[in-house]
Amino acid sequence: MTNRRSNFVNMVKHLSDVPSACYSNEIKITQSSPFRQAFHIESESGSLGDPNGFSYFNGNYHLFHQWSPLAFSKNPHYTQHGWRHLISSDLVHWQNLGAGMESDSNLDLYGTYSGSALAVNDILFIFYTGNTWKNTESLDNWQRVPYQVGAYMDKKNHIIKNTAPFLTGPLKGYTSHFRDPKVFKKDNHYYAVLGIQRDNLTGTALLISSPDLHDWNIVGEIKTNYSKFGYMWECPDYFEIGNYGILNFCPQGLEHYPNIYQAGYLIGNKMNLKTGEFFNTKFYILDEGFDFYAPQTMKAPDGRRILSAWMGISEIKYPTEKYHYTGCLIFPREVNIKAGKIIQKPIHEITHLYKTSDYITKNISNEERIPIPNKNQRDITFTIGQSNSKALLLDIFADEKNKNHLRIIINQKKNYIVINRAHSSFPFAEEYGEERKNNFNLSKNLQIRIIQDISSAEIFINNGEHVFSLRYFAQDNQTNCFITSIGGESKVSIENHQLSL
Amino acid sequence: MTNRRSNFVNMVKHLSDVPSACYSNEIKITQSSPFRQAFHIESESGSLGDPNGFSYFNGNYHLFHQWSPLAFSKNPHYTQHGWRHLISSDLVHWQNLGAGMESDSNLDLYGTYSGSALAVNDILFIFYTGNTWKNTESLDNWQRVPYQVGAYMDKKNHIIKNTAPFLTGPLKGYTSHFRDPKVFKKDNHYYAVLGIQRDNLTGTALLISSPDLHDWNIVGEIKTNYSKFGYMWECPDYFEIGNYGILNFCPQGLEHYPNIYQAGYLIGNKMNLKTGEFFNTKFYILDEGFDFYAPQTMKAPDGRRILSAWMGISEIKYPTEKYHYTGCLIFPREVNIKAGKIIQKPIHEITHLYKTSDYITKNISNEERIPIPNKNQRDITFTIGQSNSKALLLDIFADEKNKNHLRIIINQKKNYIVINRAHSSFPFAEEYGEERKNNFNLSKNLQIRIIQDISSAEIFINNGEHVFSLRYFAQDNQTNCFITSIGGESKVSIENHQLSL
Repeated sequence: MTNRRSNFVNMVKHLSDVPSACYSNEIKITQSSPFRQAFHIESESGSLGDPNGFSYFNGNYHLFHQWSPLAFSKNPHYTQHGWRHLISSDLVHWQNLGAGMESDSNLDLYGTYSGSALAVNDILFIFYTGNTWKNTESLDNWQRVPYQVGAYMDKKNHIIKNTAPFLTGPLKGYTSHFRDPKVFKKDNHYYAVLGIQRDNLTGTALLISSPDLHDWNIVGEIKTNYSKFGYMWECPDYFEIGNYGILNFCPQGLEHYPNIYQAGYLIGNKMNLKTGEFFNTKFYILDEGFDFYAPQTMKAPDGRRILSAWMGISEIKYPTEKYHYTGCLIFPREVNIKAGKIIQKPIHEITHLYKTSDYITKNISNEERIPIPNKNQRDITFTIGQSNSKALLLDIFADEKNKNHLRIIINQKKNYIVINRAHSSFPFAEEYGEERKNNFNLSKNLQIRIIQDISSAEIFINNGEHVFSLRYFAQDNQTNCFITSIGGESKVSIENHQLSL
Repeated sequence: MTNRRSNFVNMVKHLSDVPSACYSNEIKITQSSPFRQAFHIESESGSLGDPNGFSYFNGNYHLFHQWSPLAFSKNPHYTQHGWRHLISSDLVHWQNLGAGMESDSNLDLYGTYSGSALAVNDILFIFYTGNTWKNTESLDNWQRVPYQVGAYMDKKNHIIKNTAPFLTGPLKGYTSHFRDPKVFKKDNHYYAVLGIQRDNLTGTALLISSPDLHDWNIVGEIKTNYSKFGYMWECPDYFEIGNYGILNFCPQGLEHYPNIYQAGYLIGNKMNLKTGEFFNTKFYILDEGFDFYAPQTMKAPDGRRILSAWMGISEIKYPTEKYHYTGCLIFPREVNIKAGKIIQKPIHEITHLYKTSDYITKNISNEERIPIPNKNQRDITFTIGQSNSKALLLDIFADEKNKNHLRIIINQKKNYIVINRAHSSFPFAEEYGEERKNNFNLSKNLQIRIIQDISSAEIFINNGEHVFSLRYFAQDNQTNCFITSIGGESKVSIENHQLSL
């Protein structure tokens, strides 16, 4: 018997409803963390989750994220939830505007769940899921009622929520797991995709449309080749690049994949937005690392498709929880298509963070320490040229003796790459394994680019044909980088840029 | 330019040709190793490789193996190679008869390579590959000449080799990589399968036949669905169980598989021994662990198909090399077929080694130390009954704080098993990754049986539907066993038998 009510003792609508000393104390605890990121978006305290409302409006990029700032507060523990709001002119330097939306209306009293935003003339239209429960007098028979709700932000970043929902769940044939609208415009018509669970407990995505962002019609399920594919799809996002249609989503309940939850995409011809037909697609994992979920894209004014995501996964206990916070967003990526698959690269604005650069070429035949500044804030690229090595080991976050490290194993003889985070002073999520492996053709001029921050690495292989993102928590002395060549010699060129806001 | 000659400085035909102090010194160094196995066959010094001539003859099991007893000798370094010979009445207690065959004939001067044996009336017929080189006056243009040779062992274990080969390589259309005859009898006719490399540098197996073990005819290549599958097949072994035909072999040069070399099998309908046709088969890895190669089977007098193999792989640097030896054989296994796949279990004679037994049932909801004797010589079975855990961690070779260990991750939520050997004081072969993963349906009553010796573990899942074999090198204090349940409680029954010769 679940006592749901126990989750909501001391639930408040606004962060300002708790004694200010309480939250400032939380922030103080978080600030004492040795794992704070230098240039990735984190919460100043509490838990950060899915990116929301990623958009360009009024001369700025806007990015919100799921936020429970008091998630780790104690004595008393408060529950408060909403969207934190950040803005940026360059996707790199972000200004924290604090609570953007809070769970303060009757349509979202139990959670301002994920959603999206679209600039329309002078307003930013926000489309989100409000979570509510009915029958809360009962101990264990609470019934979820999800509302799909609109809100409007003006140029002063003031948000007004609608008081009536566009749609109320559960819809006939579906359970009350119905959330995460992603709104987009095509041919002067508006659409949104949402995650939904069928009554038979399989997941799918629903397509809805509107001529005016007021009246929404259900087009129907997005019709894919994947009719039985997990028990729920979260955070769908449909967009088009060239002649391709891409549906990003997070199918929950897939077996055998190493991570607890996956984020992936279907790619094929463009979706028929009149019928939802989206056949002849193939499913790929978007990021093959340990910590990646809830991707959301936006179209930049210059036409680029930019990706954000949560560099974290639900239910994983991160070592930062000790410091009363968890989660960060990925560094924004530009996505493109190559050979029928998504490729990803850090946005070029990362160069705004370059402070010093080093260019090193070495013939490596054994273990070598790479002389780069000892701060784990880097955009570092390793290009492997002439090589007769059987394998190369790239170690970052390495201590002086290279005992602890995050290791990238490039097995040239067997044509695979392994990311190994077993050698850590702060292990976590070990029950999901400590390696991720993928097969490659390790042709000459293999390129490995790593966006490394204090406690994360985003590893881009061959211009982002494969990406592995993960959190890694290191001791103070783990700031070195080593390369080891096994069974031969390799010429490795290293381009390192130290990064700082 | 390879200077092959440098490999053969101080090559001697017989172990007895070196000063006796030299080899006794090697043995002394080996004896000082903390990693010596208690009940697995190891070499008393030098390197052990493929099992050879596995057979039953004259009231005993006979097992030979590839042997270079002086492989790690120094000042001077000697080269000497042959087959070491062991006999046993029960496949468990083995008597070491020392050098069974040495590289002392003109047909095997550069190596008494692998082969097999078959009892025929009063003799044990041995069929092996003699390795020779011609053009050895040149520095780098040595040419390999492989001979397929017969030898005969009498009841006094005295072996006489033929002075003329049955077959001489290279055969037309093939390179000189031609070796490892496995002889068998069917319907009063003799056959052998051998590994061979085509001129186009792909591997295959050759079937030959003989009415009398004297005259051998080439039937031809074994015709499979796998015409391009690695650059060489080593150690083929064909046998039949029920209506199935099984071809064990070691395809070299497969990409993407984690281990450097694989051992696997094709299974299907019985082979047509007149034509070599063996279609409609499927390839499976025989053992999914880190260290397994060159399996060879024999038929026991009671009809069981018994498997031996090298618990090691070429080119891996094992920590035992410090002590001038490397390699061991697996504990013998009985193989059977279930649902079209091989299943494996330790031979029942393992009970001959049982000394004390413990039966423990625990409800595990956190980390628990399992109270069993602190000696890593065990036949231990974990049966997981009622469970709502998300994952279970079984740690053996664990120190008191469970920091170092060999870990079996049973992820019940995601239905996979990971074997993780990253947490070791004596890491090796890290360039091939430190985990092996496989997907399972982790239904109730999952059973994990581990044959654990001082420096190895053979892990049998659900009565041997999957097997993971590996070496693991531990500190003296790593004799504990822990079970951790994550996210729930599991009832685990443990049956532990301490083993000793």
